[in-house]
This record gives sequence, C-alpha cells and structure tokens, in this order.
Amino acid sequence: MRGECFELDACILSSASAVGKKESEGPLRGCFDYVDPTDRFGKKTWESAESEMQRFALNLALGKASLHDRDVGALFAGDLLNQCVGSAYGLLSFNIPYFGLYGACSTCAESLLLASLLVSGKFCRAAAAVTSSHYCSAERQYRTPIEYGGQRSPTAQWTVTGAGAFLVGEATARSGAVRVMRGMPGIAHNSGISDSSNMGAAMAPSAVDTLLRFLNATGEDLSAYDKVVTGDLGFEGGSLFRDLLYAEGVDLGDRYADCGQLIYDRERQDVHAGGSGCGCSAVVLASYLLPKLQSREYKKILFLATGAMMSPDSVKQGESIPTIAHLLELSSADIGKDGGV
Amino acid sequence: MRGECFELDACILSSASAVGKKESEGPLRGCFDYVDPTDRFGKKTWESAESEMQRFALNLALGKASLHDRDVGALFAGDLLNQCVGSAYGLLSFNIPYFGLYGACSTCAESLLLASLLVSGKFCRAAAAVTSSHYCSAERQYRTPIEYGGQRSPTAQWTVTGAGAFLVGEATARSGAVRVMRGMPGIAHNSGISDSSNMGAAMAPSAVDTLLRFLNATGEDLSAYDKVVTGDLGFEGGSLFRDLLYAEGVDLGDRYADCGQLIYDRERQDVHAGGSGCGCSAVVLASYLLPKLQSREYKKILFLATGAMMSPDSVKQGESIPTIAHLLELSSADIGKDGGV
Repeated sequence: MRGECFELDACILSSASAVGKKESEGPLRGCFDYVDPTDRFGKKTWESAESEMQRFALNLALGKASLHDRDVGALFAGDLLNQCVGSAYGLLSFNIPYFGLYGACSTCAESLLLASLLVSGKFCRAAAAVTSSHYCSAERQYRTPIEYGGQRSPTAQWTVTGAGAFLVGEATARSGAVRVMRGMPGIAHNSGISDSSNMGAAMAPSAVDTLLRFLNATGEDLSAYDKVVTGDLGFEGGSLFRDLLYAEGVDLGDRYADCGQLIYDRERQDVHAGGSGCGCSAVVLASYLLPKLQSREYKKILFLATGAMMSPDSVKQGESIPTIAHLLELSSADIGKDGGV
Repeated sequence: MRGECFELDACILSSASAVGKKESEGPLRGCFDYVDPTDRFGKKTWESAESEMQRFALNLALGKASLHDRDVGALFAGDLLNQCVGSAYGLLSFNIPYFGLYGACSTCAESLLLASLLVSGKFCRAAAAVTSSHYCSAERQYRTPIEYGGQRSPTAQWTVTGAGAFLVGEATARSGAVRVMRGMPGIAHNSGISDSSNMGAAMAPSAVDTLLRFLNATGEDLSAYDKVVTGDLGFEGGSLFRDLLYAEGVDLGDRYADCGQLIYDRERQDVHAGGSGCGCSAVVLASYLLPKLQSREYKKILFLATGAMMSPDSVKQGESIPTIAHLLELSSADIGKDGGV
C-alpha cells in the first residue's frame, strides 16, 4: 500500500443543492435548496435539465457565499453524460476558468479535492466544485428507455436527479465554514465485476483501499471521526464495504453512513439497492452532512465518494468495471489539526 | 476580460508518444517513440487499442525519467471516448493516484497545467499527464461507421491516432528539462457554431480569448516567444485565429504554428482541414516541440490546446458547441523567469 495524503488548508465557504421530485419526497425532504417537481428545470430535454440544475446550484452557492464570478479562480466540474455535457453546457454562463473532470460518481470528492488543492497552494482565493446526475438522462444513456419499463435487478441503484455546488476558500476566510483538512486521492482499480447493475459491489473495494491507505498514511484511528460516509455504495456495496474492512481489522461500528442509503426510503420509494449518480453524494454532502458539521453535531467526518468508470460500450465489449474512490477529511471550523478546539 | 495567470515552478522531466500508421507517414515521421502500423496496438477493439496506446506512452515516459509509480503523486488523464474509458482502462495498471479529466482536445494542456500546479504547490514531487485519441474509436463514436465511406466536409479534421504522456517534476530536479513557467486556464465559451464538422472555427475564439487574457495579465509581448502553438485548430481554425487576433491588434507574424497543421501533409495525406483529437497536440508537443525547447532551437513558446466539448447528442439536440483553450508558457531549462540565461 502506498500513497501520500495531501495536507490541505481550505474550507467550504458555501454549498447548494437542486433536486427533482423523488429526492424531495425522501428522508432528506426539506434539506435541499431548490426542488423542481417536474424534474425538467424549465428545459425541453433531460440533458438540458441536468445542465440547468448545475447552473442553479452554482448560482445559489455563489449567492450564499456572497461571491461573484470574478472572485473565483477555478471551477472543477463533471457529470456522467457522454463528453460531460451536463457541466460543459450548464456552466457556460459563468466567467470562471473551467476544468472539466470525469470521475463518474467520485466527481464530488475529486472536484472538492482539486479545488482545495488550488486554494491550499495559494493559487487562488476561491475555487468552485460542481457535479450532477439526472435519472432520465442516465437511464437513456446507460440503460433502456424509461418507457420500456424494464425490470430492475435487486442490486441496481436509482440515479439521483440532483446537482450540488460548493465554494472552497481560504481556511481563515470566515467562521462557521467547514474545514477541508486532508485529502487522499484514489487509485483506479479493476473491480473484476462486469455487471453494471451491481456498481456498489464493484466500487466497494476501491473505497476500502483508499480508506486503508488514508489510515495507514496518517496513523489515524476511526474513533477520531463521527462518521465515515461513502458516496453511493448503496445497500449492497455498503454492506460489502463494511465486511471487507472488518476482514482487514477495521470495524466501522455505528460510524458508517452512505449517501445512497440516506437519500431514499428503500421500501417506500422502490429504489432497490439505494441511490447513485454524481448528484447523490453531492446533494447529500451539500444539504445534509455539511449543515451537521456547521452545527457541530458532527465534529469530524471522512467523506469518500466512489466512481465506476465504465461506459455502456466497454461493458458490451466484455470489460470489467474500473473503479475509484477519493477521500476528504472534513471538520467543524473550530476543530484544529490536532483535534483540539 | 479577467482571470489571473498561475505562476508555476515546475518542469517537464520526460515525454513520450505512441502513434498509428498515418501519423508515422506524415511530416513528423521519425519523431515518435512508438509506431504501430496496424493501429491496433495488439488489441481486438479500437477502444482497447486507444487504452493500450496510453499505457505504452506512460510506460515510455516513466522509463525516460527513470521514475517508478511510487515516485509519482498524481496522474491526470482524459480522452474523447464516452466516460473517458481510454484513460480509465489504459492506466489501470499504474499504482498512481488517478484524476480523470474531460477537456476534449484541450486535455493535454489541462492535464499538464494541473500536474504543474500540484508540483508547484509542493503537493507532490512528480505528477503525470496523459491523453489520447484514436481515429477509429472517434469515427465510430462521433461520426459514421468507417465502412460507410461517408464524404467528409472540407472543414473536417482527421482525428489523430496517438497518445502522449508527460512527467512533470520540481523545476530544479534535472538539467535539460523544459520549464513550465506560467499557465492561463481557459474559460468555457459558447461558440455559436453547431457544425461539428467545423470544430476549428468553433474553437478559434476560445484560443483568442485565453491568449489575450494571458498577454493582458502578464504584460508580455509576443516578441518574447519563438512560437505560439495551438493544439488542433487546423487550417480553417488556424486562419480564423490569426485573423481574429489581428483584428484585436495582435499580429502573429511568422510565430504561429498549429499541431493539427504540423502532423499531416495536407495534400498528400487527404486530411482536409488538418489533424485533431486529444492525441494531436499531445504527440506533437511530446515528440516535436519539447525536443526543440530542449535543444534551445526554441527558447520560449506558448502552447494553447483547444477543446470542443459537445457530444453527438447535444449537437443533434440543436445545441451549439461549447469550447475552451488552456495555455502554458514553456521555456528552455536555462531561461529564467526574467528572460535572462
């Protein structure tokens, strides 16, 4: 095992989320900043609707932080659509240097990590991170047309319709902001799994690898954290994540949560193995986890967003799924690096 | 116009290229590190062939720099394929933290800029940048099947079959390496052009915008540079780039070159408006431009890779093409920031 952890000195100045109908009816109802019960966000195509969600989310986050385009030195964004058009079109109206990313569902953590690196390295005073997914654009691209009514596998996850945006700035900029203390970038792995209806299982070993590398590099113990939160392993992958870690001598106990498990009511909303998509971890972090860190209900968490980087074509060509997980250590603003207040 | 320029302190330790048959028959024949005259790189699918080119290129670059995976703190990579599978599969065998990018044909400059930022910020001692394109995988995805023999528009460009890899390290690490002095990130623009057979024209205004912002932010004059090299504007876009700059009072004179114009013999190789694809600027930089900087034939150049970030679906939905251009200032190792030797 190798890989050094990045020491960061940045904070999340603001965050915002925009979601669709199903998300607004789940356990996190009332948490999100903007809900469109039509899922269309005023647009004629699902792809444009996804772009529009990103634009809404970043505008809301800029407003909350009282920042303008000119204050933001870099914008990191990506999504699941071919050629990442959700981000490319959605963020065109912002006059901010743009870095397009593709990290599948790890994009939320990848973009926050890169934004935090640029701010920590004093290359800019503020940087933005934005990502999204849309159930309808994802179904059209990855699976069968929705109208077909195809039967879903029990391990399949439901793509979240949602976009999350974050503004990262200097750690001393304002009180109440959540600090980004450290980041452990993921290493891409071949999961050996080629069932794209079981992405939780494909991604779980990557999350285990990144978490173990982080604990190894820093010497930290999980008891230092209120929660270890994965992005969208869902019920199937989350259970594997817990078991694989236990086999490595790491017991998550009651510290574990997964954004894909939190966002929907599994039984009532018929989502099978839980939520997924780049938007899943982004909106749960923006509107559920960060407020808990701001209110000090959580003092310190590990946030691990996982991605499955196959394409529909690569799966048809018989390739197994490449996966990745990026980790961020987040803390309440008034918790120092040494853990003291 | 806004946007601060990133001051960088890094150098390109090594570079390598792998290309196909057509590239090996063009004006730059003999420059490339690895040529496969079958374009297949030992693989059964064009997509796997593209992945394999990336693996070859990074392995060659690691070897030239005498570096191992464990010496490299971050790997930035991307390509044109849906979900960037060229990079995700091609770089799986490397035990290096992976950051997936999507910047279309600007990926070479985007990845080098991010690698240089991480090294300049002292987050790692070395970082890698890799990108590729493959004529056959691109034709299959973006246009008609090759077997169809569809007629090409005069403004169409020919996707380069090639991968380029670069290792970026600390500026003081070794002599003979090319220095990365400054970087100006691109801002995404709506080109207003929806003809995906004329991407040079769509991208030219983005290249103009980034170059003017760079000259404005730094106060530099083009006379300080031996060459201003764009990525893949080709003959159509290159001519527009020159004219648009002239209208802004900037005369490129005989300083201008474009990788898409350099890589093929326009008449003899029947490439219409020149080469394109992420691999175009990557292999020309790796195997033609960097050696000229190493030998001091060029002392200082501006390298501007441009990208057209549409998808086949977005074009069919009537959207115009979003474009971007990232700029790097590169110099011979023994040219200081003040221009002195």
